[in-house]
Amino acid sequence: MASGSGAARVATTGTGAAPLFGAEVYRDRLRRAADLTRAADLDALVVAPGPDLRYLVGSRAETFERLTALVISASGDARLVIARLEVPSLSASAVGDLDIEVVDWVDGDDAHALALAGLPAQPRVAVSDSMPALHVIPLARHTGATPQLATDVLRELRMIKDAAEIDALRRAGAAIDRVHARMADWLVPGRTEREVAADIAAAILEEGHTEAAFIIVGSGPNGADPHHEFSDRVIERSDIVVVDIGGPVEPGYNSDSTRTYCFDEPPADIADAYAALFEAQRAAVAAVRPGVTASSIDAAARDLLAERGLAERFIHRTGHGIGLSVHEEPYIVGGNDIPLRVGMAFSVEPGVYFSGRWGARIEDIVVVTEDGCEPLNNRPHELIRL
Amino acid sequence: MASGSGAARVATTGTGAAPLFGAEVYRDRLRRAADLTRAADLDALVVAPGPDLRYLVGSRAETFERLTALVISASGDARLVIARLEVPSLSASAVGDLDIEVVDWVDGDDAHALALAGLPAQPRVAVSDSMPALHVIPLARHTGATPQLATDVLRELRMIKDAAEIDALRRAGAAIDRVHARMADWLVPGRTEREVAADIAAAILEEGHTEAAFIIVGSGPNGADPHHEFSDRVIERSDIVVVDIGGPVEPGYNSDSTRTYCFDEPPADIADAYAALFEAQRAAVAAVRPGVTASSIDAAARDLLAERGLAERFIHRTGHGIGLSVHEEPYIVGGNDIPLRVGMAFSVEPGVYFSGRWGARIEDIVVVTEDGCEPLNNRPHELIRL
Repeated sequence: MASGSGAARVATTGTGAAPLFGAEVYRDRLRRAADLTRAADLDALVVAPGPDLRYLVGSRAETFERLTALVISASGDARLVIARLEVPSLSASAVGDLDIEVVDWVDGDDAHALALAGLPAQPRVAVSDSMPALHVIPLARHTGATPQLATDVLRELRMIKDAAEIDALRRAGAAIDRVHARMADWLVPGRTEREVAADIAAAILEEGHTEAAFIIVGSGPNGADPHHEFSDRVIERSDIVVVDIGGPVEPGYNSDSTRTYCFDEPPADIADAYAALFEAQRAAVAAVRPGVTASSIDAAARDLLAERGLAERFIHRTGHGIGLSVHEEPYIVGGNDIPLRVGMAFSVEPGVYFSGRWGARIEDIVVVTEDGCEPLNNRPHELIRL
Repeated sequence: MASGSGAARVATTGTGAAPLFGAEVYRDRLRRAADLTRAADLDALVVAPGPDLRYLVGSRAETFERLTALVISASGDARLVIARLEVPSLSASAVGDLDIEVVDWVDGDDAHALALAGLPAQPRVAVSDSMPALHVIPLARHTGATPQLATDVLRELRMIKDAAEIDALRRAGAAIDRVHARMADWLVPGRTEREVAADIAAAILEEGHTEAAFIIVGSGPNGADPHHEFSDRVIERSDIVVVDIGGPVEPGYNSDSTRTYCFDEPPADIADAYAALFEAQRAAVAAVRPGVTASSIDAAARDLLAERGLAERFIHRTGHGIGLSVHEEPYIVGGNDIPLRVGMAFSVEPGVYFSGRWGARIEDIVVVTEDGCEPLNNRPHELIRL
């Protein structure tokens, strides 16, 4: 579609039967969410569209201004408040197979009051991270207090991936590895970052993703900005090029992998810095095992780069959890002393950035196992010469 | 890219020089926002990425977990708190040309505290609609109170479009009209809704949009669901087909127009209901002028359909404001007694829906003028036979 137009992100949307986990998976998650709600001494969780809703009932709803909210009470009752208009979208979720009361509303109704109906007066509620202020604030007015964050309650549930989730992440990892394996077909001096990004976007879909959720093609000086996406810059033979790409595979679990490429033999200073980065990333992956803290993985990469005089070049955290969200808990960052547990999945992605000149990053997703971790990305980690 | 893959929404992303309004436009908006903040007896507005931030400083930032916030104090000071990683993204905004203090932060800093620094203790703040709970709640903890909604403050500013904004909406309207004008090329019995949607997505970009933000191709019974997107249903000769499409043109203003199509002469009951819908939509457009209420426009369409026995078939509000957001104030809905003013832009889109059989909707964007309104969509309003 519109090749050459600069288009680079392509979503598969539209109503359709969504491949979902079985209803028993969602039933179990709802039951555990209610248990955690009770344990947190809350009356209810109020979950708006977003990754938490998808996790709990398989819904891909994306409403904004009209409130959709799954209300899970401490007693285990679950109600879904949804605009009547949006009810048909539930067919692409597990809601119909679960014991959830669907309460629809029409313009003019007080949807926020409906969401809280049946709860005690001035209920203690927690709302999902992604709920916009547009709904958080009316809910707070109704309850008389600022809600808590449901993440604090659901963290336990979402951070530990079950076998089906790990399998989905494994498929996502293999799919993005296949895209990186084809990089030489597109990443060629003389082309613009945007042209390369368009080809990568197509390949991300071809290799089994449902969306090219993000694409970074950072050539030369653009590689020194970790959040550069892509531009009209023409790639040069002497460039180092950071390619950080990913997207979801069904039923919504994400890939995210970075490799760094070059065309000519790099000068010694670049080769040396890259070698340090390579070691730092390998050291951080090697440090992953149950019981160690998230911050210790960050330190493993950071300390090695510091030893090589590159402390100032590593300007972001080492990683982030991944699943239905590209970024979720656990964050692999200094100060996060959460102990790693079997089934956690996260990125390990140190980078080095030389402003105005070049940058490099190496990123794998890993899943914590009994005796270490399973890397889900397995393309070579060296500076890849095309 | 990936034609035939089912892809249907294509975003132009990537770093690039964004065509923006001149800095004086944003300077004036910031000044007026500070005035309104003071008038609302607030200490500050805290504006997260989203349409309000784009309106105020031309930023397209889309951060989620790392706080980006423009803080406009009642005294007129403006500060932008942003993760150091995201600072380069500011080049695609007017921030550098405005008198805004940029405060960057790194992982580990308390970004929410930074956002509130310099304000009085326990400040009274309002946050933008789109700010996620992830940030609303920590801000509320810092201020000791649930914030207000910035929409209540900025409504005045964003609802009334200036000449440059109206020009952008006019260009958007003309662009989506050109897509509807080509509908016979793609909307053909025997094709699936998804195939048609993919062609429409490409045309939306070709005709000057930067993104195909939404596409509804509702054929036969799918047309009876106002929020159906598209599916693998094969379009039949006897179908009535609702096509509701739009997206942004630079610098971010949206189109949104619906027309309803058929192939054969429709049966009498459908023709009669459509004729009533046509009259209802024309009556609502004709009722638009300064001083009348938003609800009176809704009533103009609704009353006419009720007279024809179709009250139960019109299951949504008549329209929504449009600008940098596809849906914004003023909402054209019963109960909204806001008087229309020159420069307001909104959709007029009554519909009729016969569950399991067919549906129809007619939608134009109009801008309120001194003596009525200027319609920005000008394709024929009849049931269009292809």
